[in-house]
Amino acid sequence: MSVTIDRPADRRGADLSRRFTTSAHALDSEVTPNKVFHDWFDEQRRVNQFDVRPIPFAELTGWHFGDGDGNLRHDSGKFFSVEGLHVSTDWEDRGSWMQPIINQPEIGILGIVVKEFDGVLHCLMQAKMEPGNINTIQLSPTVQATRSNYTGVHRGRGIPYLEYFAQPRRSRVLVDALQSEQAAWFLHKRNRNMVVEVVEDVEPHPDFCWLTIGQIHQLLLRDNVVNMDARTVLSCVPFEAPNGGARGIVRGGYREGLLRSLSADTRSLHSTGEILSWLTEAKARHELVQRSVPLHLVERWHQREDEIGHEEGKYFKVIAVAVGASNREVTQWTQPLLAPVEQGRVAFLVRPIDGVLHLLMHAKMEAGVLDVTELAPTVQCLPGSFADLPPERRPAYLDLVTAADPASIRYDTVQSEEGGRFYRADNRYQVIEVGDDFPLQVPEEFRWVTVAQATELLRHSNYLNIQARSLLAGLHTTW
Amino acid sequence: MSVTIDRPADRRGADLSRRFTTSAHALDSEVTPNKVFHDWFDEQRRVNQFDVRPIPFAELTGWHFGDGDGNLRHDSGKFFSVEGLHVSTDWEDRGSWMQPIINQPEIGILGIVVKEFDGVLHCLMQAKMEPGNINTIQLSPTVQATRSNYTGVHRGRGIPYLEYFAQPRRSRVLVDALQSEQAAWFLHKRNRNMVVEVVEDVEPHPDFCWLTIGQIHQLLLRDNVVNMDARTVLSCVPFEAPNGGARGIVRGGYREGLLRSLSADTRSLHSTGEILSWLTEAKARHELVQRSVPLHLVERWHQREDEIGHEEGKYFKVIAVAVGASNREVTQWTQPLLAPVEQGRVAFLVRPIDGVLHLLMHAKMEAGVLDVTELAPTVQCLPGSFADLPPERRPAYLDLVTAADPASIRYDTVQSEEGGRFYRADNRYQVIEVGDDFPLQVPEEFRWVTVAQATELLRHSNYLNIQARSLLAGLHTTW
Repeated sequence: MSVTIDRPADRRGADLSRRFTTSAHALDSEVTPNKVFHDWFDEQRRVNQFDVRPIPFAELTGWHFGDGDGNLRHDSGKFFSVEGLHVSTDWEDRGSWMQPIINQPEIGILGIVVKEFDGVLHCLMQAKMEPGNINTIQLSPTVQATRSNYTGVHRGRGIPYLEYFAQPRRSRVLVDALQSEQAAWFLHKRNRNMVVEVVEDVEPHPDFCWLTIGQIHQLLLRDNVVNMDARTVLSCVPFEAPNGGARGIVRGGYREGLLRSLSADTRSLHSTGEILSWLTEAKARHELVQRSVPLHLVERWHQREDEIGHEEGKYFKVIAVAVGASNREVTQWTQPLLAPVEQGRVAFLVRPIDGVLHLLMHAKMEAGVLDVTELAPTVQCLPGSFADLPPERRPAYLDLVTAADPASIRYDTVQSEEGGRFYRADNRYQVIEVGDDFPLQVPEEFRWVTVAQATELLRHSNYLNIQARSLLAGLHTTW
Repeated sequence: MSVTIDRPADRRGADLSRRFTTSAHALDSEVTPNKVFHDWFDEQRRVNQFDVRPIPFAELTGWHFGDGDGNLRHDSGKFFSVEGLHVSTDWEDRGSWMQPIINQPEIGILGIVVKEFDGVLHCLMQAKMEPGNINTIQLSPTVQATRSNYTGVHRGRGIPYLEYFAQPRRSRVLVDALQSEQAAWFLHKRNRNMVVEVVEDVEPHPDFCWLTIGQIHQLLLRDNVVNMDARTVLSCVPFEAPNGGARGIVRGGYREGLLRSLSADTRSLHSTGEILSWLTEAKARHELVQRSVPLHLVERWHQREDEIGHEEGKYFKVIAVAVGASNREVTQWTQPLLAPVEQGRVAFLVRPIDGVLHLLMHAKMEAGVLDVTELAPTVQCLPGSFADLPPERRPAYLDLVTAADPASIRYDTVQSEEGGRFYRADNRYQVIEVGDDFPLQVPEEFRWVTVAQATELLRHSNYLNIQARSLLAGLHTTW
């Protein structure tokens, strides 16, 4: 090991942000021109047609309901199981409830390989089929692997490019943090979000292509193209206030405020220390007790031969599906999936404060959260599940989001959640700008933060939830 | 709320570090001159004499062993309980084992009030009795309160100065993070470490006095004076490379390296991103399954009428004590305590790298850890519990620490762990300097970090364990 030691970390961080920003400004690429990408992606969708067909649980192969607890698990004990959870909390008067939840304790890797071509970082993206996906094929990170995949005897054989994420590493790690996934549906689930840079020649593979971040940002403006795993990894990428021109429609004041918000040197309404202290206060003062219960004892949920559902039809169902290639008659595999009963709404309210764009974050408690609370978008809910509640129990700011003036909407797409566990789960993701007259004073569970502050928190685990990260990735398409 | 927003957080952070550093350079104070402090503290120890007497469990009042599980708990269900834990891990070939463990799910506050007198921050410290303390009375933070104390109906009535830590706050928060406690003895335990600044006049109280950080640093050079709770809060305080003179024995090269290590702008062997990635890798690749088991089913531990102990006499015992004022015959209360079987060894190996002092941190897995691993000192163990093991199973670097040349020892004191839960638990805390010839290449579970990097991590939860924080507080006495 050399004794020459590195430059201060902040300067290296700035270099990295600059390189990612350069890639975000490249809206096309000679490596994979947009036309070539779209032809390739359309072809991938055309040739990889799958039938995903709901089936009764009794037709699941390799899965069973446990004798003692009724939990739905794989015969090997691997993959994941569907269990019961009892939650008790004093958070926002939510009291206690029971629900089914997915337990998948292993930490997997969601990783993007990047490589410089002609001075511009390109991401190696995969056209990946997952059974719950809307459109079946979506654009994914280079690697999505469970721990069983990358440790153990097989050491990831059969997963292309996994070797760049394993030790000893033939790559340089640029982004690396454990981040949570849907805590309303998963118990304590986290995946490792990574970006690694490779210098050597990378072997091509027909399901993969190189895209700049700018190209991916354009795809993030379309519905259901870039999958959740790619969005969460991209959300952890730091950018600097770009010097280049606007990439899309120029909205003067909004864009200037956003560019200032990207800079770590900018002024913020609250210091990062104050944001951390506010979260610490929330965790210390509130109670959250999570207790595993047998699935068959979960109250207010019924189990039928083809679904486990809530007695009022709210929230989600657990179903089983059979998956097969549409051009063949044999089933390839069966598995359980979690199917939400409606499209969700996810929105950041954003406003300039002293010329710097701030995002209104919600410290949200969800059933399976690891550490009491994480930062969520301003609004994140299934609206129908609240429709029958009195106004004071409905999510704050939801009415404002659903009635937003179209002229104030800066980002608006429908994106899918993870298609390996969720069946056609989608959310409408929006960034809505509110004006200087919108009150800075917000309820205790909310705080205004800059993009730079959110990005700094993403170096660490379990600060921003998956919906906030997804939407942050979308927000980055708007500068 | 004003629309004027703050200066960039880094500049305010620098102001704060400068003010704490000024206080650390004040080795005496007109508010509480050293002579006055020592007279007062001696008097506190003299008048507050307590008898702490081991008793059979059957003589505990208000505590019982549960019918079903044999767990030792308070009749009210509050305070804490002693339960069984089954641990299974692939970390460092440790396999699986069972042990008793303390479960205390509530997050308490460990808080120091600071106030400026003549331009120098002073800490409001308490002379506090706890039954397990060596010397009974030790110097404590302003407040040590459980959540039951500061929420609920009583709202902390009877706990002096608790109002400065409660909302709405008549103070400014300078330090605020959840930090873990002994994970070999506690399951997932954390307390909220806070420093708050008060401007208004603070009412005096006979058990409290104002001390500069420099005065407390001098007390940290003595055995068993500054309690664990004070040490952990102080460890979270940021300092800057001080311009003032040395406060103690000048050790040229060591001190220069340490001062460079305090500066956030310094060069480090690894960037903070690399340290975070290394920890992420450790958490993602290793398995740790913690499962609660009934105390009476814990294998290899026996239960007698006055102790629960390990069959080989290793690790610790659970005992019961009766506590009473020595000048009165009535018992004031009884409670269980955890009594380690020997004094522990805790040491940082430190070495200059390119002129900057680095600490050798160990990513350690302990039974009750919240998130797989935290950074521990280079050595942290009960040596006797390893004496009969083959060399490859003994803690790395332990032999080097026990055989250290006295000329290389920069800090060396015995400090007590928390006297409210542990009976005469103490560790010998050492900082040992190794030379340029000491290998930079270390085993995978170890990494060299600067003091500035450790301090940056302490803004967040669960990065440095309690022993590393205690010793970091001690290290700060050496500049």
